[in-house]
Amino acid sequence: MEHWLNKRASLTPNQIALEMEEESYTFYQLQQKVKTFAGQLGRFQIKGHIGILSDNSSEMVIAFWACTYLQLPVVFLNTRLAISEWQQQCTDADVEWILTSSRYLDHAEHLNLTVKTFFEVKKLSVYEPASVDEIDLHRVCSMMFTSGTTGRAKAVQHTFDNHWSSAVASSLNLGLLSNDKWLACLPLFHIGGLSILIKSVIYGMPVYLLEKFDTEKVHKAIMEDDVTILSVVAVTCSRLLERLDEGQYPASFRCMLLGGGPAPKPLLEKAQAKQVPIVQTYGMTETCSQIATLNEQDALRKQGSAGKSLFSASLKIIGENGECGAGQIGEIIVRGPMVSPGYYHQTTENTDEWLHTGDLGYLDEEGFLYVVDRRSDLIISGGENIYPAEIEEVLLTLDGIIEAGVTGREDSKWGQVPVAYVVQKDKELTAEDIKNYCSEHLGKYKVPKSIYFRDQLPRNATNKLQRHKLI
Amino acid sequence: MEHWLNKRASLTPNQIALEMEEESYTFYQLQQKVKTFAGQLGRFQIKGHIGILSDNSSEMVIAFWACTYLQLPVVFLNTRLAISEWQQQCTDADVEWILTSSRYLDHAEHLNLTVKTFFEVKKLSVYEPASVDEIDLHRVCSMMFTSGTTGRAKAVQHTFDNHWSSAVASSLNLGLLSNDKWLACLPLFHIGGLSILIKSVIYGMPVYLLEKFDTEKVHKAIMEDDVTILSVVAVTCSRLLERLDEGQYPASFRCMLLGGGPAPKPLLEKAQAKQVPIVQTYGMTETCSQIATLNEQDALRKQGSAGKSLFSASLKIIGENGECGAGQIGEIIVRGPMVSPGYYHQTTENTDEWLHTGDLGYLDEEGFLYVVDRRSDLIISGGENIYPAEIEEVLLTLDGIIEAGVTGREDSKWGQVPVAYVVQKDKELTAEDIKNYCSEHLGKYKVPKSIYFRDQLPRNATNKLQRHKLI
Repeated sequence: MEHWLNKRASLTPNQIALEMEEESYTFYQLQQKVKTFAGQLGRFQIKGHIGILSDNSSEMVIAFWACTYLQLPVVFLNTRLAISEWQQQCTDADVEWILTSSRYLDHAEHLNLTVKTFFEVKKLSVYEPASVDEIDLHRVCSMMFTSGTTGRAKAVQHTFDNHWSSAVASSLNLGLLSNDKWLACLPLFHIGGLSILIKSVIYGMPVYLLEKFDTEKVHKAIMEDDVTILSVVAVTCSRLLERLDEGQYPASFRCMLLGGGPAPKPLLEKAQAKQVPIVQTYGMTETCSQIATLNEQDALRKQGSAGKSLFSASLKIIGENGECGAGQIGEIIVRGPMVSPGYYHQTTENTDEWLHTGDLGYLDEEGFLYVVDRRSDLIISGGENIYPAEIEEVLLTLDGIIEAGVTGREDSKWGQVPVAYVVQKDKELTAEDIKNYCSEHLGKYKVPKSIYFRDQLPRNATNKLQRHKLI
Repeated sequence: MEHWLNKRASLTPNQIALEMEEESYTFYQLQQKVKTFAGQLGRFQIKGHIGILSDNSSEMVIAFWACTYLQLPVVFLNTRLAISEWQQQCTDADVEWILTSSRYLDHAEHLNLTVKTFFEVKKLSVYEPASVDEIDLHRVCSMMFTSGTTGRAKAVQHTFDNHWSSAVASSLNLGLLSNDKWLACLPLFHIGGLSILIKSVIYGMPVYLLEKFDTEKVHKAIMEDDVTILSVVAVTCSRLLERLDEGQYPASFRCMLLGGGPAPKPLLEKAQAKQVPIVQTYGMTETCSQIATLNEQDALRKQGSAGKSLFSASLKIIGENGECGAGQIGEIIVRGPMVSPGYYHQTTENTDEWLHTGDLGYLDEEGFLYVVDRRSDLIISGGENIYPAEIEEVLLTLDGIIEAGVTGREDSKWGQVPVAYVVQKDKELTAEDIKNYCSEHLGKYKVPKSIYFRDQLPRNATNKLQRHKLI
């Protein structure tokens, strides 16, 4: 296939590609900037993987597409992590080279890798014009880390075909209007953000890009800037509804795509009362964004459901005795051309064509999916996934802690926040000591909000920690 | 991939799938009818290819999808052929079994094959329920005959992937609205008709099906029945514009997709004046319908162009010395996942990934395609190339001429000379008048040497002018 950005710039050169508060680029302008940046980056003859560490910005968008011209898989690093976490991820994903914004330069320089800011690269002369005209759909385009049940994060690989199939499947569900404009306030280092960039180029659709979620800015963009689609998670959705108050969004705003975890019923009811077009969706990094989404037609009738699997995808619920009947809760398994071929460097030889998500859910009599819970122990805080095992692992490296268990506590602002239960050897550590230690080794959102000291933790017969019994 | 009709019936069971003058079916109802029919047809344990010989009807639609459940490739036979031509095609495509409507039963029985009418099959008990749940994208779904540049028709094979890719690429260009309804009045035995059925199931979009083109019925469907998209060729487009007269189509009617050959400029101007949303397209049986289509944004600015190749496709113009520059006429070659893997039983071992269409065209400075002519029609006179379409366009600008066709006549002096066949409105023009008019607008060698008056011109089932049949 022709390189998507070339093709798009050829088809609709004057269509707006990227719109920000202060500037906007057409697809032609974006392509030119990307080609130039690729030519500048080309000077370094990078061979391995390239890491991008940045908040949302036009530079980040340009750098990502430039890497596709250079056939360099991009490893997206979460800006909220601690340095030691980035170090681990760069090692695991064979990252040799980091592109970052000036804000993260100091941090990135601790990584003992070649680090350049977008600005440094942009100052260089062009080495040679980027000349990749074709996209090989089977190549890896991007990698993002996600934690498994065992703690340490793994790099999910996305091929170009995963991205293509995801964009196509999404449009077959949501439709594709000539006035569509998708607001991206999810981080581009998460699949929910990156997938909007890919759709933009494949659909010929403007993206309204914000550095991050900001209630006022998002509200204004919907009310005044002709945004038609917005991706949110429960906590940001809730803030927007509060801001909307008694008002109403313009009729052209047609879809608030709500993902990132089960949606609380009161939120959905509030949205319905305000006639906000919520469309619930289910997906994860491994499925390259959405894999199931509720239809417009069924939005009211099936409130709380994430719908059915997209046209090219399939979804089943399985229990101990095979496929579950209607209403029976089991593990959600999925299949489709958007599902990642696997984790980087994890050759588990998955002979099953189905991805076992570890999430729990059921189908109703009509086959609509209700996600009951993410992997039983997963904590979702402001749309970020937090895996207890990862925090426990850090706690256990602290001298004096002999047992640790982490679980989520309900929180009105973030949905959930992590809290820790620890058993000490000599009772010398304070909660403050422990939090400080965690801050050095974990992203801020992962640092336990409370530390509870216990003499022992609940364990089952095989001594496995029972997180659901932590109190 | 799950079988498309199963998936669609699961996603939007109550959406209208098929709408006709007297009846309509939802996707659920269509699926049930198809499953039953497949169960009835299953009784015959057909192993080879199955031919369908029918005008457009719901039975034909049901029979087609039933064959996909039985994994039987369908060979579509053109109802306007002579018995000897059907015989030839059935032999060439290994057809063992014919499904037909009562209208063609007598004819079909001359073919020395097993022949059943749709009605006969529907009377049978169900042999066993059709149970194919999956579609193998690499399998052949349908075959249609097309004449090459020389003589005998060849069977073009369409895989499921060709159909899928065509439907997806079309939606990325035209968009996909929740109120879309596509009117099918092109024969389903041509790709322009069949592709609408495929889109219907993949998009979840109703098809308004007519047995054949009928000016009154199509006009009524656009004006009163919420049709949003219609596929036409130049002559049917022209009749509709005449019928529209001073009226206007509803605003929801968003696309009159004009294919099947170069469009005469006067027609496009007339459409523009009446604000009819003409979208010119270029495609052929071998490309499984559209491969290039003009964008909405460029429709006025690039009148007469068939646009650019669809997102997943590529298109080039080549001449004797390789790729042609802007404005240079050469052969159109195309590539993409919708392009047929080849003709049945014609193992020419095409190692070139590009399909050489045999059609002539050029790209303007911005890369927009202008189809000049289908190559077989090229008239070469005294070393000069003459494109019939160019002369026909001039003839149609002359008041009183409503149809025109030009072809080459053998000539001892020049090799070939152009001659014209015209249909007059009021029989007021003489041959001399017409030649004089042409002389004013064309180089001398392009002026038709003879003018023949006819009551009608030979057209195929899609109303495309058949220049080789002009006599």
